[in-house]
Amino acid sequence: MLKAVLPGSFDPPTNGHINLIKRAAAICDELHVVIAYNKDKNYLFTPEERLGFMKELLKEYENVKIHLWDSLIVNFVKKMELHVIIRGVRALADFSYEFELAMTNKMLNDDIEIIFMPTDPKYFVLRSSAIKEIAMLGGKISTMVPPLVAEALIERLSSA
Amino acid sequence: MLKAVLPGSFDPPTNGHINLIKRAAAICDELHVVIAYNKDKNYLFTPEERLGFMKELLKEYENVKIHLWDSLIVNFVKKMELHVIIRGVRALADFSYEFELAMTNKMLNDDIEIIFMPTDPKYFVLRSSAIKEIAMLGGKISTMVPPLVAEALIERLSSA
Amino acid sequence: MLKAVLPGSFDPPTNGHINLIKRAAAICDELHVVIAYNKDKNYLFTPEERLGFMKELLKEYENVKIHLWDSLIVNFVKKMELHVIIRGVRALADFSYEFELAMTNKMLNDDIEIIFMPTDPKYFVLRSSAIKEIAMLGGKISTMVPPLVAEALIERLSSA
Amino acid sequence: MLKAVLPGSFDPPTNGHINLIKRAAAICDELHVVIAYNKDKNYLFTPEERLGFMKELLKEYENVKIHLWDSLIVNFVKKMELHVIIRGVRALADFSYEFELAMTNKMLNDDIEIIFMPTDPKYFVLRSSAIKEIAMLGGKISTMVPPLVAEALIERLSSA
Amino acid sequence: MLKAVLPGSFDPPTNGHINLIKRAAAICDELHVVIAYNKDKNYLFTPEERLGFMKELLKEYENVKIHLWDSLIVNFVKKMELHVIIRGVRALADFSYEFELAMTNKMLNDDIEIIFMPTDPKYFVLRSSAIKEIAMLGGKISTMVPPLVAEALIERLSSA
Amino acid sequence: MLKAVLPGSFDPPTNGHINLIKRAAAICDELHVVIAYNKDKNYLFTPEERLGFMKELLKEYENVKIHLWDSLIVNFVKKMELHVIIRGVRALADFSYEFELAMTNKMLNDDIEIIFMPTDPKYFVLRSSAIKEIAMLGGKISTMVPPLVAEALIERLSSA
Repeated sequence: MLKAVLPGSFDPPTNGHINLIKRAAAICDELHVVIAYNKDKNYLFTPEERLGFMKELLKEYENVKIHLWDSLIVNFVKKMELHVIIRGVRALADFSYEFELAMTNKMLNDDIEIIFMPTDPKYFVLRSSAIKEIAMLGGKISTMVPPLVAEALIERLSSA
Repeated sequence: MLKAVLPGSFDPPTNGHINLIKRAAAICDELHVVIAYNKDKNYLFTPEERLGFMKELLKEYENVKIHLWDSLIVNFVKKMELHVIIRGVRALADFSYEFELAMTNKMLNDDIEIIFMPTDPKYFVLRSSAIKEIAMLGGKISTMVPPLVAEALIERLSSA
Repeated sequence: MLKAVLPGSFDPPTNGHINLIKRAAAICDELHVVIAYNKDKNYLFTPEERLGFMKELLKEYENVKIHLWDSLIVNFVKKMELHVIIRGVRALADFSYEFELAMTNKMLNDDIEIIFMPTDPKYFVLRSSAIKEIAMLGGKISTMVPPLVAEALIERLSSA
Repeated sequence: MLKAVLPGSFDPPTNGHINLIKRAAAICDELHVVIAYNKDKNYLFTPEERLGFMKELLKEYENVKIHLWDSLIVNFVKKMELHVIIRGVRALADFSYEFELAMTNKMLNDDIEIIFMPTDPKYFVLRSSAIKEIAMLGGKISTMVPPLVAEALIERLSSA
Repeated sequence: MLKAVLPGSFDPPTNGHINLIKRAAAICDELHVVIAYNKDKNYLFTPEERLGFMKELLKEYENVKIHLWDSLIVNFVKKMELHVIIRGVRALADFSYEFELAMTNKMLNDDIEIIFMPTDPKYFVLRSSAIKEIAMLGGKISTMVPPLVAEALIERLSSA
Repeated sequence: MLKAVLPGSFDPPTNGHINLIKRAAAICDELHVVIAYNKDKNYLFTPEERLGFMKELLKEYENVKIHLWDSLIVNFVKKMELHVIIRGVRALADFSYEFELAMTNKMLNDDIEIIFMPTDPKYFVLRSSAIKEIAMLGGKISTMVPPLVAEALIERLSSA
C-alpha cells in the first residue's frame, strides 16, 4: 500500500500541477495533497481560496485528500504517520534544487522517502510565477490553467 | 529576408550586449532592439536614459532600430508583424532559463521562432546586475561597459 | 497497491544498487528487479551470474522478484501488465539522461509511469564501470560492493 | 539575406531533424543542409542513402539545398562563402556540447556565426542512436521517423 | 608557501563551513577567513557576532586568521598582498555561479587565482539560508550547525 | 608548504594544459605532473613521447617534476607521501565528472584533498580529443597546442 504526500504552494494550481496529481493518484492507494503556506509570505490567493480550487478540481479523485499546512512538510508527514513524499520534476533546471530539498528532508527525518515524477513536457514551462506575470501583462493563459483558475486570476489581477 | 527582435532590459547596456547586437545585426536585414521595462519594477536608469545610451552606442548600424516596450515581448512581435526573437546565451547557467522562456513565448504565440546566439566568452561574465554591484563597491568597470555607460554609472551611484 | 519494475544491468550489483532496491521494496507491494542484457554487448558477468548475485543479496526481501530480460524494458512492463518503472538518480549528471529515457519509454508506451528515487549520497559515486576499473588497478573495493561481489570481481579480473 | 548551413549526420533523419530544418528554412533565404560523414566511421545508412532520404523528404522546400561533406564543417562554410551555421539544441543535456562545438568552430574560423534553434519538446527525445536501438529491439518507431525512413530502417535491421 | 583567503558571509557558520575551513587550513601555510558584509543588507547576526562565532570555533587552528570586510573581496586580497582565493563548491547547482564569480574576480584583478574545494557530501545540503528557515519552523538543526551556533540561532529566532 | 599532484593523459599536451600547469606551479612549492597511462588503452603518442613533450615545455619551471604512472592515481599520491591533487575544470560540462572522480578518490584514500582550478576561458574548448580530430581533418591547430606538439601531431597523423 502506497500512501504519499504531494506538497506545493499551488498559488494558483496550473494544468501542470493537476496533471501531476492525477498521475500520482493513479499509482497511490492514498494521496495527500498538501497546500503549504507560510504566514510571513505574500500569496496571490489565500490558503482557503487555494483549498477551494483544489477541492473543485480534484473532486472526482476518491483517493486524494487535500490539506492546508503552515509548518515544515516533514512535520506533516510525521503527524500523519506517512513515509513518502512525491515531487514533480521538470526536465529543466530544477532537479538540483529538488535533490537538495530531498536531502534536507532526509536529514530532518530519515524515515522519509522522496520520489520524483517527471513533468509531462507539454506542461513543463508552466510555473505559477510565470503564469501570474503573463496574466498581469494581458497574455493568454487559458491553455495554462484550468478555467476556474483562469477566471479567478483575471478577476484578482484586474482588481489589484 | 531576416527581420528579428532582440529584447533586454539593458540597465545599463554592457560590452557583452553591444557585442551581441553587432553580431546579430550582421546576420539580419533588420534588427529591432527592444528595451523592455515594467512600470512596477525599479531600474537604475530610466527607459529614456537607456534609449539614449543605445541610440548613441548603435548609431552607426543602419539596420538596427531601437524601441521602448512595457508589455509582453510577444505582443511587440505581433504588432510589428515579425516572427523571430534573438536571445544571447552564455556558456554557463542560463540556457535552461532561456529554453523555458522560449517555450513560454511559443505557447503565447506559436508563430514565433526564438533563436539563440552564444555570448563571446570574453564577455560571458558581464551581467548588468554584477556590474552595478562592482561599480557600487568601487571596482574597476572600464573593461565591462562602454565609456559613456561607465561615466553615467559612476555619476548615478555616487549621487545615490 | 504499487507494483513496480526496477531495471538495470547490474554488472555487477553495487552497494548503491542494493540500497536503492531495499528502499524501493519498502514502498512497493511488489518489486520486480529486472536484469537487462543485450546479446550483442560484452559483460564482465553473465546474466546467470548476475541473477545469482541478486538472488543471494535479496533473499530476505519477500516482495522482490528477480528477472532476466533481453528486450526493451517497456515490453517487459507490458507482458507483466505493470505500469510503473523505478529508476535511481544520482545528484550529479545523470538526471537529463534519465529524463530522456523516461520520455522515450513514454513514447513507446503511454501507460507507463516512470518514477525516480534519489541515490543516497553515501553511494552516489559507485558506478559499476568505475568499480570495475578500480578493481582492475588493484584499488580497494570492499566498501563499494557486497562481499560476495567483491570476491567474484577479484577472481574474475585476476583470471583475465 | 540570411544564408545558412545546417549540418548533421542524419543517420537516419528523424522527425525532429525534419521539424528543425523546416523551421530553419522558414527564416533563411537559403538553407544548406549538410550531411557530414567521416570515412573512418561506421554508419547504418551510406551517405548516398541519407542524401536520398533528405532529397525526398525536403523536395517541397525550394530554398533548401542538400550536400554531402566529409571534412570539417568550417571548410564547407568557407568554400561556399557563407558565415552562419544553425544547430538544433534540445532542452536537455546537449547545450554545453553545442557551446563547445561553437567555440571550437569560432577558433577555426572567426568569421563564422553559430546560432541555435531550440528543438520542439515534442521531438526532444529523438536521437538517431536511440531510435536505431529501439528499432533493433522491435519497438514502435512510426511516430519518431518519417514513413520512408521507418521502412528503410526495419528492412536494414532485419537484414543485419 | 600557500597563503590564501576564504571568504563568506557565514550568517551563521554551519558544519559545512567549518569542515571546509579545517580542510583548507590543512593545505595552507596561512589561511585568512574573511567575513564579508555589506552595510545595505540585512543579516540575522551582526558582523561582530559572526566574528565571535568564528573565533571560538576556530581557536585551535593557529594558521587561521579571521577578518571582517565590507568591500570587494579583490580589494582585501590586494591590501593583504595575497593571490589565492579558496571557495567551497557543492556537487549540486553552484558550480556555474562559482565559475562566474571566479571570472569576474579575474577581470577585476588578473593576479588572483581562485581554487575550488569540493564540499564533503555529508554537508552538501547545508546552506545558511535553509538552516535559518528550518530553525524558524522548529526543525532539528543540531546536526547542521555547531552547538554554540544552534543555541544562538534558537535564541535569536525565538526573540524575533 | 603545498606539494601537489596534477595528473592527466596529455595525449598530447595542449595550450590549456600548459596554462593550467603554470598557474598551479605558481601556487605550489612542489608540483608533480603525472602522465597517466593504461597499458590496455590506445594513445596517439607513447608515454615516453608525452614525457618528452612535457620535459621540453616545462623545463623552465624548477618546482615542477614530471612522472609516468600506469596505476591508480591515489597509489601515486600515497607512494610519494603527498595529499593534494589538482584538477582543471572547464566552465562547461565537466564539473560533475570531476566531482565524481574526487569523491571516488576520497573513498579510496580519505587523506587526499582534491582541489579544482578553473580553466582560463581562452582555452576552455581545447580537449586533446577534439584537437586530434581537427588536425586529422586538416584544421588549423597552431593556436591550440604548443609549436612542438603541432609539428609532432601533423607528422604523426600524416604517417597514419
